[in-house]
Amino acid sequence: MSALASYISGYVDGEGCFCVSFQPSVRHCLGWEIRPSFSVSQNADRSEILELIRDKWKCGSIRPDRSDKTLKFEVRSVTELLRVVIPHFEAFPLLSTKQRDFERFAVICRIIGRGAHLRRGEFKKLARIAFTMNPSGRRKYSLEEILGSLGSGKTLAAAALSTEDLA
Amino acid sequence: MSALASYISGYVDGEGCFCVSFQPSVRHCLGWEIRPSFSVSQNADRSEILELIRDKWKCGSIRPDRSDKTLKFEVRSVTELLRVVIPHFEAFPLLSTKQRDFERFAVICRIIGRGAHLRRGEFKKLARIAFTMNPSGRRKYSLEEILGSLGSGKTLAAAALSTEDLA
Repeated sequence: MSALASYISGYVDGEGCFCVSFQPSVRHCLGWEIRPSFSVSQNADRSEILELIRDKWKCGSIRPDRSDKTLKFEVRSVTELLRVVIPHFEAFPLLSTKQRDFERFAVICRIIGRGAHLRRGEFKKLARIAFTMNPSGRRKYSLEEILGSLGSGKTLAAAALSTEDLA
Repeated sequence: MSALASYISGYVDGEGCFCVSFQPSVRHCLGWEIRPSFSVSQNADRSEILELIRDKWKCGSIRPDRSDKTLKFEVRSVTELLRVVIPHFEAFPLLSTKQRDFERFAVICRIIGRGAHLRRGEFKKLARIAFTMNPSGRRKYSLEEILGSLGSGKTLAAAALSTEDLA
């Protein structure tokens, strides 16, 4: 039902966030884990729309946000982001400048989706794009810290094999 | 365009507020002015949707909110609330419990629209409904303070004449 889809896009324009965070990780060949996520927040006393989105999309989960008294609907799986979330906002775009964040988010998820983020060059490109998103948000690590401490990465062939590990 | 209308309802579900406030007033025969308003807030760096709503509805105004760093689109005119805002949300309802606030808001605006709020009995009914809305919001005056200090009000005939004063 496209009226509901438009409603969800409108809701997300106010309350949603496309986020790409970076976390140091010894398990990852470049030394950093990339975590793309889509989330929508709402006061804990009024969670209907979060449930409605989860039920329509059949993915993601709802949990309390530790930082404030809100609930958060979140999709972290790259597979679900590529299969459900990104196609939704391509069909029912955001009407504010948040759409620019979404478009960058989609580029990043597709790089990850084809495993290219495991190569140094693509990782750097991806990180630079991520740092142009949500300029008002706070980040734990700077772009310089991340790019200055990158491991050697994988070869093209090894990176291609690893794409099957994706969530 | 109904997709845009659904989008606006979704946006308002997250960011909008239907509010009825009360202000002591010597100009008003019952001693209290009733101020219904519809508002939508947004961070000041991203006002597109507020402008989009104002341009589509051809009413209301956008101004900085003194209480925080947001912009607020607001409709205060009872005439515009009855002509534009209420019909919008009757055609494109909110999908969360905020719809209950809207329905009460619509009842109150219609009481004001026919001038019935100038009579003590209708004013009391209206005030009691208003105090069931936005339970998490703060109010400057309690229901007891308002109802305990009401003037004598107008007669039915005088109230009917006064409806032409409405904004």
